[in-house]
Amino acid sequence: MPSAKTQPARGMRDFLTEDVRKREYVIGVIKEVYERYGFEPLETPAVENIETLMGKYGEEGNQLIFKILKRGVHEGTGEADLALRYDLTVPLARVVAEYRDKLPKFFKRYQIQPVWRADRPARGRFREFYQCDVDVLGSRSMMVEAEICAAASEVLTKLGFNDFCVRLNHRKALTGILAVAGVPLESHDAALIALDKLDKIGPDGVRKEFAGRGINEVAGDRLLNFFSDLNSLEHAAEIVAEDELHEALNRAVLGRLVEFVSDNELGAAGVAELQSILDFTDAMGIANRIKIDPSIARGLSYYTGAIMEINVKDLAGSLGGGGRYDNLVGMFLGQDIPACGFSLGLERILVVMSERAMFPAEAGTASADVMVSIWDDEHISESLVLAQELRLAGLRVDLYPEPEKLGKQFKFASSRGVPFVAVIGDEEREKRQVSIKDMQNGQQHSLLRAEVVEFVKGLLTQRRKGAK
Amino acid sequence: MPSAKTQPARGMRDFLTEDVRKREYVIGVIKEVYERYGFEPLETPAVENIETLMGKYGEEGNQLIFKILKRGVHEGTGEADLALRYDLTVPLARVVAEYRDKLPKFFKRYQIQPVWRADRPARGRFREFYQCDVDVLGSRSMMVEAEICAAASEVLTKLGFNDFCVRLNHRKALTGILAVAGVPLESHDAALIALDKLDKIGPDGVRKEFAGRGINEVAGDRLLNFFSDLNSLEHAAEIVAEDELHEALNRAVLGRLVEFVSDNELGAAGVAELQSILDFTDAMGIANRIKIDPSIARGLSYYTGAIMEINVKDLAGSLGGGGRYDNLVGMFLGQDIPACGFSLGLERILVVMSERAMFPAEAGTASADVMVSIWDDEHISESLVLAQELRLAGLRVDLYPEPEKLGKQFKFASSRGVPFVAVIGDEEREKRQVSIKDMQNGQQHSLLRAEVVEFVKGLLTQRRKGAK
Repeated sequence: MPSAKTQPARGMRDFLTEDVRKREYVIGVIKEVYERYGFEPLETPAVENIETLMGKYGEEGNQLIFKILKRGVHEGTGEADLALRYDLTVPLARVVAEYRDKLPKFFKRYQIQPVWRADRPARGRFREFYQCDVDVLGSRSMMVEAEICAAASEVLTKLGFNDFCVRLNHRKALTGILAVAGVPLESHDAALIALDKLDKIGPDGVRKEFAGRGINEVAGDRLLNFFSDLNSLEHAAEIVAEDELHEALNRAVLGRLVEFVSDNELGAAGVAELQSILDFTDAMGIANRIKIDPSIARGLSYYTGAIMEINVKDLAGSLGGGGRYDNLVGMFLGQDIPACGFSLGLERILVVMSERAMFPAEAGTASADVMVSIWDDEHISESLVLAQELRLAGLRVDLYPEPEKLGKQFKFASSRGVPFVAVIGDEEREKRQVSIKDMQNGQQHSLLRAEVVEFVKGLLTQRRKGAK
Repeated sequence: MPSAKTQPARGMRDFLTEDVRKREYVIGVIKEVYERYGFEPLETPAVENIETLMGKYGEEGNQLIFKILKRGVHEGTGEADLALRYDLTVPLARVVAEYRDKLPKFFKRYQIQPVWRADRPARGRFREFYQCDVDVLGSRSMMVEAEICAAASEVLTKLGFNDFCVRLNHRKALTGILAVAGVPLESHDAALIALDKLDKIGPDGVRKEFAGRGINEVAGDRLLNFFSDLNSLEHAAEIVAEDELHEALNRAVLGRLVEFVSDNELGAAGVAELQSILDFTDAMGIANRIKIDPSIARGLSYYTGAIMEINVKDLAGSLGGGGRYDNLVGMFLGQDIPACGFSLGLERILVVMSERAMFPAEAGTASADVMVSIWDDEHISESLVLAQELRLAGLRVDLYPEPEKLGKQFKFASSRGVPFVAVIGDEEREKRQVSIKDMQNGQQHSLLRAEVVEFVKGLLTQRRKGAK
């Protein structure tokens, strides 16, 4: 009986057929879109030298890295010299340093591989999970941000999401807002952590947090006023949620931002870049997906420019996030390389798609189009010949491996969801025919050998169309 | 500069674009063929509980398993509780025990995932490498062996191999041969290890080995006579290497086998199964690929029936191997499950395909079909619009991210192997046209906006055909 010893390791998952097909469907769409945007694939090993990873993810990250024991006689020392990949960004930085002569000046790569973190497993949080990263290295142009937003949006649209929005902010705009409000630089992080809770605990709650974190009261009130002002703009727009209003909202928010930070050089530069991204995404036809949102504040320890996050209403977290991080990819090279990237959350996308039943029929179909049955011990070869004919014609064909009773063979096909079963009985053999049993309605069709492929393909196409 | 700290860990590899494309091409063919044979995908985690793996691969295997340290406060103890997947068979056995109620009676799965072994790295031997396994569980029918041979053969044929052969032997036939020759059961392994060297050290060498391993001289001579007799049959056939002779050779070898072991029940059963596999592969149209070879003796510790190995002349090792192992997959279930499987050696297939330049043009093409250039700062949006139009039409489009001199942009496209560059200059803009520069011959074509997609697609198709 199933026992702890046959379960996958804690926080890890086995993927049976149906799971693999769903995952491959989503990964296939991601790849196809990224390829059309000119991104190239990169793969790195699951295992890195331990010093490549340690110290790159903060103290908490160090704890969550899976470390691999030295081998052989060193095993007894308990020393680790290797570790499992923790994200796809540090390996990218290593690759950039190692192969910089081979890589183009503008390097657009996507990487879709698992990473491992010894996190406490929870709903939707696993110890082995996939990251789907795109990054563009080598350019400071805001075209890069626009392309990344467009590619991520197209992935989600192709997967059937029609209610997402790409929230867009800018690190420099944030810094400008805080500076103008009168928060000293050393308190910026504290202020943002408190502000991040505005939705949950309201202005009074945030005011208390500010006090607890030593933020000057006047500065705190200025901040709260600015953000509650933006909030009311948004609520007004939500009531009449039309595309033009969406655009008007972005313009209004940008307007307030300009007003507020125009005297702060850094802040003004950030707002100008946001404006530029908005113009470019407008040209690319996805402006209706973008929402300027000065309140998002993810990845503050590494993002230096644009900050992006994609959300849908029925998921607390995000479907993906990214931004510009000009100081990170050059870490092994000893020089800054401008970079902007985005990471789609495969596991979360899968969760939402499952809950909303968004998978197309193909992603959940049986593994075979036809099962060829076995009539009796003497005529096995005929079934083998037929199976090969059908496979050669491109059909996915299962072959029942035993000359058991036909009823048992039909039952097996039915339990596997195989839509058609081919039978060559004595009568069919004499007439050089094949019987095709349609498992959906039980009808049996006698066909000439040469007609089988077309018949099955025709019905399959018809049903797949019908399922859409 | 590149240094040890930016190289991948010892024995591991980074795959840049071209490598990934080649690997994905081969994996794509393998998947497509296995799907047509009715196999279903399975994926298991990279990390297993350590007790799942320890003791399953012998003492040497235990040494080569990468072990993962416990986390948190336990890290200091040097104790390992997890380990990296060492092969795909033990995880399959675990999956079969864990989900046996969900899995079909006849379970045909393929699994293409990396495994990790702390082997000494050497040419073609890596510490992270892919295994491509197919296994059929639940049936003792020789149809299974035939299907597995046919599927593996079709994979190799589709990849362009036309000189491989599937060597086929049977564990019971081997046991029968040794018994009839007079080798006692406890000396079978020793005798086979010596016989395996026949090619290299000749009959006299093997005779000495026999003596050293305590094999009775009369028995040893009987064995040597039998195998040298088979060898001369084969040499005769090789001189006139025609398909019919290939078949005649198999018949002749089977004939000798029958003669030699007919009085031994086990041996006779093994030969009958070989005959059955040969009949079935004949029906499936791949008999010309099969070569009955009583000398192959791989995996003797786990194969219980058929033993298979695929070879090509210019590779010392094999491109893949497999066989029937009725006692292994049930290890966690506590009951025997009949099983037969085959593992294709992805890394070796890639080595041979590279050496023989067997990759089709698609597997090595540039990552973009067209690069859209940027005319100047004011007209960036026009380039963005064009890029989106071309992507929407299915082309893979790169976008130059900076308004630099056109010559620099052409140079970049050329260095990346991008075949076409789109330019919208002042003149083109006025006429609502686009210039397409053909990077292969330097010609520039002025086209109406609506003509671009068809023009580029047409030339791409033409050139891909030409490259074949």
